[in-house]
Amino acid sequence: MADRVVLAYSGGLDTSVGIGWLKDATGKEVVALAVDVGQGGEDMNDVRQRALDCGAVESIVVDAKEEFADDYLMPALKANALYQKRYPLVSALSRPLISKHLALTAKSLGADSVAHGCTGKGNDQVRFEAAVAALAPDLTSIAPVRDLALTRDKAIIYAEEHGLPIRQSAASPYSIDKNVWGRAVETGFLEDPWNAPIEDLYEYTQDPTVQKDADEITITFEAGIPVAIDGVSLSALAIVEKMNELAGRHGVGRIDVVEDRLVGIKSREVYEAPAAMALIEAHEALESLTLERDVSRYKRGVEAEWSNLVYDGLWFGGLKRSLDVFIDDTQKYVSGDIRLKLQGGRATVTGQKSAQSLYDFDLATYDTGDTFDQSLSKGFIELWSLPSKISARRDLAQ
Amino acid sequence: MADRVVLAYSGGLDTSVGIGWLKDATGKEVVALAVDVGQGGEDMNDVRQRALDCGAVESIVVDAKEEFADDYLMPALKANALYQKRYPLVSALSRPLISKHLALTAKSLGADSVAHGCTGKGNDQVRFEAAVAALAPDLTSIAPVRDLALTRDKAIIYAEEHGLPIRQSAASPYSIDKNVWGRAVETGFLEDPWNAPIEDLYEYTQDPTVQKDADEITITFEAGIPVAIDGVSLSALAIVEKMNELAGRHGVGRIDVVEDRLVGIKSREVYEAPAAMALIEAHEALESLTLERDVSRYKRGVEAEWSNLVYDGLWFGGLKRSLDVFIDDTQKYVSGDIRLKLQGGRATVTGQKSAQSLYDFDLATYDTGDTFDQSLSKGFIELWSLPSKISARRDLAQ
Amino acid sequence: MADRVVLAYSGGLDTSVGIGWLKDATGKEVVALAVDVGQGGEDMNDVRQRALDCGAVESIVVDAKEEFADDYLMPALKANALYQKRYPLVSALSRPLISKHLALTAKSLGADSVAHGCTGKGNDQVRFEAAVAALAPDLTSIAPVRDLALTRDKAIIYAEEHGLPIRQSAASPYSIDKNVWGRAVETGFLEDPWNAPIEDLYEYTQDPTVQKDADEITITFEAGIPVAIDGVSLSALAIVEKMNELAGRHGVGRIDVVEDRLVGIKSREVYEAPAAMALIEAHEALESLTLERDVSRYKRGVEAEWSNLVYDGLWFGGLKRSLDVFIDDTQKYVSGDIRLKLQGGRATVTGQKSAQSLYDFDLATYDTGDTFDQSLSKGFIELWSLPSKISARRDLAQ
Amino acid sequence: MADRVVLAYSGGLDTSVGIGWLKDATGKEVVALAVDVGQGGEDMNDVRQRALDCGAVESIVVDAKEEFADDYLMPALKANALYQKRYPLVSALSRPLISKHLALTAKSLGADSVAHGCTGKGNDQVRFEAAVAALAPDLTSIAPVRDLALTRDKAIIYAEEHGLPIRQSAASPYSIDKNVWGRAVETGFLEDPWNAPIEDLYEYTQDPTVQKDADEITITFEAGIPVAIDGVSLSALAIVEKMNELAGRHGVGRIDVVEDRLVGIKSREVYEAPAAMALIEAHEALESLTLERDVSRYKRGVEAEWSNLVYDGLWFGGLKRSLDVFIDDTQKYVSGDIRLKLQGGRATVTGQKSAQSLYDFDLATYDTGDTFDQSLSKGFIELWSLPSKISARRDLAQ
Repeated sequence: MADRVVLAYSGGLDTSVGIGWLKDATGKEVVALAVDVGQGGEDMNDVRQRALDCGAVESIVVDAKEEFADDYLMPALKANALYQKRYPLVSALSRPLISKHLALTAKSLGADSVAHGCTGKGNDQVRFEAAVAALAPDLTSIAPVRDLALTRDKAIIYAEEHGLPIRQSAASPYSIDKNVWGRAVETGFLEDPWNAPIEDLYEYTQDPTVQKDADEITITFEAGIPVAIDGVSLSALAIVEKMNELAGRHGVGRIDVVEDRLVGIKSREVYEAPAAMALIEAHEALESLTLERDVSRYKRGVEAEWSNLVYDGLWFGGLKRSLDVFIDDTQKYVSGDIRLKLQGGRATVTGQKSAQSLYDFDLATYDTGDTFDQSLSKGFIELWSLPSKISARRDLAQ
Repeated sequence: MADRVVLAYSGGLDTSVGIGWLKDATGKEVVALAVDVGQGGEDMNDVRQRALDCGAVESIVVDAKEEFADDYLMPALKANALYQKRYPLVSALSRPLISKHLALTAKSLGADSVAHGCTGKGNDQVRFEAAVAALAPDLTSIAPVRDLALTRDKAIIYAEEHGLPIRQSAASPYSIDKNVWGRAVETGFLEDPWNAPIEDLYEYTQDPTVQKDADEITITFEAGIPVAIDGVSLSALAIVEKMNELAGRHGVGRIDVVEDRLVGIKSREVYEAPAAMALIEAHEALESLTLERDVSRYKRGVEAEWSNLVYDGLWFGGLKRSLDVFIDDTQKYVSGDIRLKLQGGRATVTGQKSAQSLYDFDLATYDTGDTFDQSLSKGFIELWSLPSKISARRDLAQ
Repeated sequence: MADRVVLAYSGGLDTSVGIGWLKDATGKEVVALAVDVGQGGEDMNDVRQRALDCGAVESIVVDAKEEFADDYLMPALKANALYQKRYPLVSALSRPLISKHLALTAKSLGADSVAHGCTGKGNDQVRFEAAVAALAPDLTSIAPVRDLALTRDKAIIYAEEHGLPIRQSAASPYSIDKNVWGRAVETGFLEDPWNAPIEDLYEYTQDPTVQKDADEITITFEAGIPVAIDGVSLSALAIVEKMNELAGRHGVGRIDVVEDRLVGIKSREVYEAPAAMALIEAHEALESLTLERDVSRYKRGVEAEWSNLVYDGLWFGGLKRSLDVFIDDTQKYVSGDIRLKLQGGRATVTGQKSAQSLYDFDLATYDTGDTFDQSLSKGFIELWSLPSKISARRDLAQ
Repeated sequence: MADRVVLAYSGGLDTSVGIGWLKDATGKEVVALAVDVGQGGEDMNDVRQRALDCGAVESIVVDAKEEFADDYLMPALKANALYQKRYPLVSALSRPLISKHLALTAKSLGADSVAHGCTGKGNDQVRFEAAVAALAPDLTSIAPVRDLALTRDKAIIYAEEHGLPIRQSAASPYSIDKNVWGRAVETGFLEDPWNAPIEDLYEYTQDPTVQKDADEITITFEAGIPVAIDGVSLSALAIVEKMNELAGRHGVGRIDVVEDRLVGIKSREVYEAPAAMALIEAHEALESLTLERDVSRYKRGVEAEWSNLVYDGLWFGGLKRSLDVFIDDTQKYVSGDIRLKLQGGRATVTGQKSAQSLYDFDLATYDTGDTFDQSLSKGFIELWSLPSKISARRDLAQ
């Protein structure tokens, strides 16, 4: 049997041409694997067929949407994951999942290598290859665009010469990655950070400046995970999809940043992630009600580290795993209801309650019923200030 | 000469009654000190006179607005200071400034103690007393409301019995603290976090849901500090005031949180801080353009620590001072222009440029002119993934 | 039935007198609880009887040595816990255990309060009361020495007047706390940090400057826990006891520090902890062989936080619990053998091996068999250095 | 004029052969630069001449010992820099210094590139090239051993064929790097971490098990820097050299670790660094006396980060620079005397005093004169424990 390579197949130009290109360059049979992470667009059966038409020996489609929501998005939500405070890790979350299916497929079909369509200057190449290295260290990763010199121009020529069934919208200026957690857009004029994004870039979100009546919903969380909207129990995936629709309608979750790529350069990115941003807002509010102060303070650092690791492609690394158990432990009591108002590009928490709340009305109130013993504060403040006081005596004596 | 105490005087009921109450309880002469940090409201001369009418032996007004903006707000902006990701430290920033003037005044007038009107269950008592301990460790701090049992009911009776010139708006249900960086509101019905704030609470911000045309401005920063709006050079104070007006008009900067007080309880707080929130948004964008990746990542932790320290009343402590020099050093190149669009409760960065930018178009572009050598990535990824790969071999062997 | 208070009873002067003193001051019946954490010294039955002779209505002795080793010392070892890099938390580890038994006993005997013999300027008062607050928030804590003004002089007089059976060694100048993890000594002349400790202070360790032949042993760890010495399986407690004997004989584990107490002051402390210091040395070596680099780097911060929390009395707090699950997860592969040479005050690792080792001879060797592909380094270094290179271009252009 | 390359020249086989090898492979003229960082061994003039004899167009020797001590070792001491708690960064500190001189020399002599003799699997290649990238981003780095395939076997043949004046001790099994801060040894049998180091490996330290009388010295620090030994003022370099001699005589500072290299593998390293380890011990003790508690706690994390950055070759990066200003600020009051006893492999602090001490005898003592108001503790503990108490009520209700 010839050697085999499993290619992460998107249905687009690069990976379609990549099938033949890989075969020509390596002599391996190419298995196409398309993983559905909620990217929408065309029918996955069409995608499957196209790979075969392009020369794949096998073409497999995996519906991984539920797995993606349960095992990738929910951990990210528990981590309030925002890389550099802004980016909810849209593509960074799908890459390890796709890599896992690449590795599993390679193993079950006896392939000795995997391939992906990423260029050599982005983050995704690292995420694919680092994930594969951590799951199946003996597999080789091949990147035709980067390693086999498959440029866009060459791909177009190759597709024409071989009569590949690619509808190449030469006109489309946008480079897009999307899944159920959000959508990333890159395009020429955005490469100057002084240029503002234009309305045409967006697909998941409507224009927030168009006046609309607010939607107000209540999200129920159990142990850090949203489980119901307005009292209706839903799967994690269904909640994310529903929130994309609701928050997207109000233009919530548009993001425009200059971010630091792992490969050492800065790039300008435009994202839209309505569900992600609205759910993080709600989740953080519920944490503020249910986490102890020092857990809350320490978790902030853990969240940043978690986000960096996932951005940097280390999803399956040991540190990420150990941070996950920390985070999971903190979520034990993060249960309750958050009322969220969606309007004008904003997701605003307007109410929060929890049977596990650490907010104690009797201690907090200034009205009748106050049980806080104010006389305790004097001693507290004296000892709290003592190090400053002692060092002040030293400093003033200099 | 009798002993003297310098009282932080607001002009309100508690501190007005506090003058006589302190004198009665301690036998000390009371010096009233009102520090103007941009709280607005009545004429500071009226405040000054009222203290004398209430029995102060001296009454001093200090206009500290420029000092507040330069020495307290700008460091907070450089730190992107948000306690628990949300609260821009409005009152927490004014307390050390007022304490500094208390200590200076006590020293220059030969007082042996200072006093403030805080209760025994809030943060501000800690901030006042910790700041005084760190500046003048031999001064005693007195809190009439907490230590001398001056309750609100007693204050009203005392004011009436002594004919003090207090216009007590018994009707106002709001407890408010404000300065040029923002405004904090507490009130009975907000003590249940399930109740949403109402429009009536706000003063610095207009209703963001009322349709208005956007304002778009360009803020120029030098070394982390805003120095001009739309090309017009302004002092830090003038920029903050201008931004309060502009961002406030669009309802930017409303904040509603359950936060962890230093004294160990959670409380529900509503803030509005239009200038603070808009300026932090702009400042963070400029940092994303001008800071190296690892500076940016590490600074995130420093910002959180800085915010905790300031919230906790340790403004004059040694750690805060050393964090300040770290932050200042990072700001050396944080210079450039940020274009900000203000509309519908949102302050959105729509353009960023800097002569100190680390964004390198030639490395970032996917178009002609790309200078990034993609062949370097393979080696990078292999070594980046090597620890995961080695541990994967170990883990799979188990 | 009269109210009851459960007193943490040591058998010494303060807590013996405390029995009557508490009864006199509060009217409560006093239950004495002596918890054996390996402090050695007299027979626990004598201790038990003495409490009765001093007026306790009940006197209970709990042998908690195994529990202490399993549930308190082993987590500390996994955390390589050293407060301020030096102090292995000897007393800080026993306090939560004793507090747990205080709370359990109070609950089972219907007591409404607990008591301890600590002064008001140390850490242990905080540890007792914070632990009780976290386990049984409705119990009241009483500190006779601090709250009921039971000074040492008064205690001596009280003991004489009431004929209490206390052998008070008025001559002993040392204040000592000890358990199986170590021993702490305070005494007058040590209060000047310029004075060196003298040989007479030590009990667990012999003089390291006396020439002796080395002992070399092999400690086997499983998942972070020592389970055997020289191939002989032992309980955690037995290993700690054995190591105290072996390492103590060679003078390992003497510690002399100025440390920061939680109550805001610095104090000078002398400790000896032979088993603790030798086991931490061995455990850290095994971690260096079996932990991934980034786990190792991140865990260092977690260890410091863990040590601070435990020092600060927050053993039963939520953050400590969540850090424990993080640490436990990292220990999964910390299994193997460490050869340790004990001599002259030093515990030196002389050999390390593990079936879970991440040390890869083929990658590390410079000899024949090297499998490391050095050509990968160039790309790695280029991208690793790229942020510095880009910012250098910026900086040099200024 | 031909292109030029400046080679970091050690005088040994690899870099001597590297001169001709570089010339042959690149056509460039080779300038040899030997930087004296206290590595000892042969006369630097002999080294200089040998480069010329091997074909260098110019050969330069720089005595950088004072610069190394002042600008590299003292910052490391202020940072108590120990990579992975153990390794005092011996080689990691000299690489940026040598790189700086490479870059300066290249600039002044019009060279377009620099070269070093490192292999492709160690840290030093990264440190050289990252430092050069950060100082002179337009210079190219060449690594003949790695990039031009100059293996040891080829080098020996080349040297013989060209009659190069290299005394190659083929017999010596040790690969050594040394400077005034310490010495690193690698050798075949150490590649198995189960093998113990042997006495023959060491040069800076004498056998600690040989009985000797103790040396006791007093080191005076000013602002974190040692300035005198036993009252005699000395330069930083002289102090380091003196401490190498004194502490080395007693076998202080032997280190044996498995450490994580930046290139992703673990390696076993044996170091000896008598001055470094003794001075860090003394410096940490003085910090314990003079730093505020929270500075001390936070600095621990900064020290780890600083050590990682320097180990990872980022000496000239922005984060390292900003951490330096943080550390410098903390050292303002780190002045005073530390008495250190050197004996049997141990450097033990036996006395500490400082005019800037924060240790307050009156607050710390349990004797007459105690000024600590113990009644303050009750309030402190109540509020300190309040979050635990509130969450305990929640947890117990579940």
